[in-house]
Amino acid sequence: MIARDLAAPCPSIGMDDDVLDAVRMMAEQRLPGIVVCERSGRPTRILPGSQVLRFVIPRYVQDDAALARVISGQASEMLLSELGGKKVSDVLSDPPDVELAVANPDDTVLELAALMARVHSPLVAVVEDNLLIGCVTLPRLLEVLLAPRTP
Amino acid sequence: MIARDLAAPCPSIGMDDDVLDAVRMMAEQRLPGIVVCERSGRPTRILPGSQVLRFVIPRYVQDDAALARVISGQASEMLLSELGGKKVSDVLSDPPDVELAVANPDDTVLELAALMARVHSPLVAVVEDNLLIGCVTLPRLLEVLLAPRTP
Repeated sequence: MIARDLAAPCPSIGMDDDVLDAVRMMAEQRLPGIVVCERSGRPTRILPGSQVLRFVIPRYVQDDAALARVISGQASEMLLSELGGKKVSDVLSDPPDVELAVANPDDTVLELAALMARVHSPLVAVVEDNLLIGCVTLPRLLEVLLAPRTP
Repeated sequence: MIARDLAAPCPSIGMDDDVLDAVRMMAEQRLPGIVVCERSGRPTRILPGSQVLRFVIPRYVQDDAALARVISGQASEMLLSELGGKKVSDVLSDPPDVELAVANPDDTVLELAALMARVHSPLVAVVEDNLLIGCVTLPRLLEVLLAPRTP
């Protein structure tokens, strides 16, 4: 089995798209992060949901649990309003704190596993002709590695 | 809304459990990692699936894509057999490369968001009386933050 066979459809977002659209996709599709594509269509980054939170929550609130506690509920209701008009590229960290793992369609199971191990990623984007054709997830790969051997 | 309301049931595994059981849970329940509890029941660690792969794939194969490519398919079929008889605690990295984020049941939405932002985690374990009562995921939190405000 190769990456092409293991790749499942995978949501992505463009660098110039509204970051609130990315947040909605993460919430609706239960994604901890989302693959980000350049204007050319090539996937190059991951936008982790935690990075969105880092962007909207002031650093001194992140670092002070007591302060986060006393800030009113209204403040949390307004939190994402900070994102209005912001593009995905505005929110991405520079340099990237999470590397997007990229594989070729003909990569083997062992190549995918070695890549996930090396970059510590539970997701590999499979790219053909500079376009995202799908993603292989770590649980899917474990499923293949666990599969009973045919004699 | 507080952490207790947002926590969903969350699989976990014990330090002394068979690591292959952890791998099966990740594969079957589509988890990129799993919460690990001490013998006392207290959740203290995350076992990322990628850490399992790091354990079974020799470092020189992780670092050499060409080598990973030429190793036969049979090698990947045998990969997880390395885990036979190993416990979860045998495979965890020391020191932890991923921190388990832990919240109290009465933590607010903003406290949960600040915690996820600080530790860059898409998952928070909610702990009461040293026991895991559930987990809050980042997509669930984003859903709450996005929810239309009641006037």
